[in-house]
Amino acid sequence: MPPAAAPALIDKIVLANRILYRQGVVDAFGHVSARHDRSPDHFLLSRNMAPGLVRRDDVVTFDLEGAALDAGERRVYLERFIHAEIYRARPDVQAVVHSHSPSVIPFGVTQQPLRPVFHMCGFLGDGTSLFEIRDVAGDTDMLISNGRLGAALAATLGAGTTVLMRGHGSTVVGASIEQAVYRAIYAEVNARLQIQARQLGDVTYLSAGEAAKAAAVNDTQLPRVWDLWTREVGKID
Amino acid sequence: MPPAAAPALIDKIVLANRILYRQGVVDAFGHVSARHDRSPDHFLLSRNMAPGLVRRDDVVTFDLEGAALDAGERRVYLERFIHAEIYRARPDVQAVVHSHSPSVIPFGVTQQPLRPVFHMCGFLGDGTSLFEIRDVAGDTDMLISNGRLGAALAATLGAGTTVLMRGHGSTVVGASIEQAVYRAIYAEVNARLQIQARQLGDVTYLSAGEAAKAAAVNDTQLPRVWDLWTREVGKID
Amino acid sequence: MPPAAAPALIDKIVLANRILYRQGVVDAFGHVSARHDRSPDHFLLSRNMAPGLVRRDDVVTFDLEGAALDAGERRVYLERFIHAEIYRARPDVQAVVHSHSPSVIPFGVTQQPLRPVFHMCGFLGDGTSLFEIRDVAGDTDMLISNGRLGAALAATLGAGTTVLMRGHGSTVVGASIEQAVYRAIYAEVNARLQIQARQLGDVTYLSAGEAAKAAAVNDTQLPRVWDLWTREVGKID
Amino acid sequence: MPPAAAPALIDKIVLANRILYRQGVVDAFGHVSARHDRSPDHFLLSRNMAPGLVRRDDVVTFDLEGAALDAGERRVYLERFIHAEIYRARPDVQAVVHSHSPSVIPFGVTQQPLRPVFHMCGFLGDGTSLFEIRDVAGDTDMLISNGRLGAALAATLGAGTTVLMRGHGSTVVGASIEQAVYRAIYAEVNARLQIQARQLGDVTYLSAGEAAKAAAVNDTQLPRVWDLWTREVGKID
Repeated sequence: MPPAAAPALIDKIVLANRILYRQGVVDAFGHVSARHDRSPDHFLLSRNMAPGLVRRDDVVTFDLEGAALDAGERRVYLERFIHAEIYRARPDVQAVVHSHSPSVIPFGVTQQPLRPVFHMCGFLGDGTSLFEIRDVAGDTDMLISNGRLGAALAATLGAGTTVLMRGHGSTVVGASIEQAVYRAIYAEVNARLQIQARQLGDVTYLSAGEAAKAAAVNDTQLPRVWDLWTREVGKID
Repeated sequence: MPPAAAPALIDKIVLANRILYRQGVVDAFGHVSARHDRSPDHFLLSRNMAPGLVRRDDVVTFDLEGAALDAGERRVYLERFIHAEIYRARPDVQAVVHSHSPSVIPFGVTQQPLRPVFHMCGFLGDGTSLFEIRDVAGDTDMLISNGRLGAALAATLGAGTTVLMRGHGSTVVGASIEQAVYRAIYAEVNARLQIQARQLGDVTYLSAGEAAKAAAVNDTQLPRVWDLWTREVGKID
Repeated sequence: MPPAAAPALIDKIVLANRILYRQGVVDAFGHVSARHDRSPDHFLLSRNMAPGLVRRDDVVTFDLEGAALDAGERRVYLERFIHAEIYRARPDVQAVVHSHSPSVIPFGVTQQPLRPVFHMCGFLGDGTSLFEIRDVAGDTDMLISNGRLGAALAATLGAGTTVLMRGHGSTVVGASIEQAVYRAIYAEVNARLQIQARQLGDVTYLSAGEAAKAAAVNDTQLPRVWDLWTREVGKID
Repeated sequence: MPPAAAPALIDKIVLANRILYRQGVVDAFGHVSARHDRSPDHFLLSRNMAPGLVRRDDVVTFDLEGAALDAGERRVYLERFIHAEIYRARPDVQAVVHSHSPSVIPFGVTQQPLRPVFHMCGFLGDGTSLFEIRDVAGDTDMLISNGRLGAALAATLGAGTTVLMRGHGSTVVGASIEQAVYRAIYAEVNARLQIQARQLGDVTYLSAGEAAKAAAVNDTQLPRVWDLWTREVGKID
């Protein structure tokens, strides 16, 4: 069991859950984790519950096998392996958001990548990858419920920021909680805009150069938007 | 007249009404019932009123002919026969939701079945059935206002979870109130996603195996989502 | 100047304004009137202001020339002639709603009639009529700002319930305030459903017989839905 | 440093920020400015922060080079050059709104102009212009972050009211804060309607004559709608 994580990190995880709920990215389902700040082979994730209700006492410590170290009687998420295997495969990743955000789902089920429509979504680069679970395990319940499926998902994510999961949702990663939450919210925004733009005609997406430059600027704006979102959720406990 | 139903069941019916209203599945119209827990040939349904305003005292006891046993002066729903005939035809069904949830209606009027787009909607199986009232009774006011129409609707529902009603709305059933409410809410979500996905390209729906497995897992999550929805509606009376 | 209208009628006009605003049918613009209950050649309409802010003292009496009898210093709506000329042409009409409700506007600008998609919209009959102001007066500011334009609009409405106004919005009429408000709200709902249904395939609309029968039943439900809408707007003043 | 601007002007800038946020035109990003009322070569713009949180003390004075005269420690917007160069190029313009309002973005990325669908949007005239930043500076981060890019944007705006910015958002101008805010809000409304109308069929837009006449009338209604929007945001500080 690693030493206690910094209280500020626990607070950010609680805030992230509440922000994602308020922004409509998660509903009763979906989850956000952060790599443990004192031990890179561990991560922090709420117990199995609706994200909008998460409190400080709900945050549980996990290892990269997906084993909970301090859950006690509390149930854990079936899909903690999404987080575990991404932290294992990606030493650069410090936070992970898994959601069923509504506008993104249509892209996974039609094998269309999200591509950056506007400058706020430069992190989408030259397009998202798609995880097709049938290719890995035939007919399943669609959930990443063990390490093998988690590793397959992480392999599909590769070095990217966002992986679509056919018939399920999506997962985004970040170098910080703020960045992962920003990406989850703006992936949803981008999806909505991309559906509408496709109805009007051929879409000019950001070029690779534009996407990279815009993403760099967006990252400098993270404190500003995190501040607004934090104020909107109010006090946490 | 059967013995009094368990207060907990009455409470769930009230909560179900309020949840469905808050989630936008019902508006001033629509209704949810439960089979009587002390008498399988009876069911419980609010008196004729807007679902969002239902209170404990509004719940009325009916038999399978659609006759109210304790309505007193209170008016009853014209379409109580939807519930009566489904309880008669389906001994496994313990709750029924009838609504005009907006995203589902376009499917009925274009003869397109709802098919499961993502794992939360496994209960849709290989697609919904469609009840075309003209085939049964020519030009009508579209309402299931007698036992004969109710029986025809139940026959179209067959062994399924969801039946679309052309030019009207839809009806979903469940083995519990929680399951029926979940299905009504997620049928609406699925419909919205299916319309958007169709705009992007050919849709990969859940296979029969995926749908069955996903539905089984969803049922284990019912307490979690029912808890969230219950908290959101607050106190009932 | 006719005798004072019944206070209950004034209250209904205030409620109607607030309900239409809360339901998103009117925004800062749009208006609802009622024929004077003591004098059929007069009608009651708010002074020129945002409908969501209307109070009892804002209701003004007009004659069928569109002249205000008790406005005092208060400004009147440029488009009072919509109401005046419809009351003149249609002795059966007791209330009129003019709005720019958003989902209806696309139909006017593409010359597509609203047709009843589901049973709540039987009043749409075999389709709405379309008023093209260019045919009457060439290039205008699109407003029904005099009696001649109002009469032309009323002629296009004919014996119907709903007339679309190209590049502007729509106007619905009713035999009571409750019915006119219901129709304005459900015209908007129908428009939204019709756009979505058209994206899925060929649409089966209500037949003429279905529309008439459904409309008759809807009218019996007006008290129930008016009660819900009234509760939602709360106290008026 | 010019003399202090009128307090009423500062108040309007604060209100404008709050209104645009509440109306969904700006989110954590976007900004609105006004030309200084005592010095036409200066303008007033909030410091770099989320528009919905702007208070009187956040308003900063700038010259037309985009230099802040009284920012102190406060950070300024990267894109203040949008405002600076438009005030330089357009002596008639007294207010500028830059936003990423969601329904407008799809038009920029498909090279489709916004065209007036209904009378509230007469200011769109015969269509918006489109600023393609690649034509000016190749691969960028999409931001108007210097005077050269601002001047290019202003040149594309020309004598118009609205310029779309591919892969970014849009900018509207006005002869007053009220007019610029109105135009930003109704550009978003028009975009939404135009997408829906295009799904139904060929669209009849306002003719040049209709657009001009309707715009003139809309301008007389600005006090009414500004009053409603102001009431909705409540007290400012």
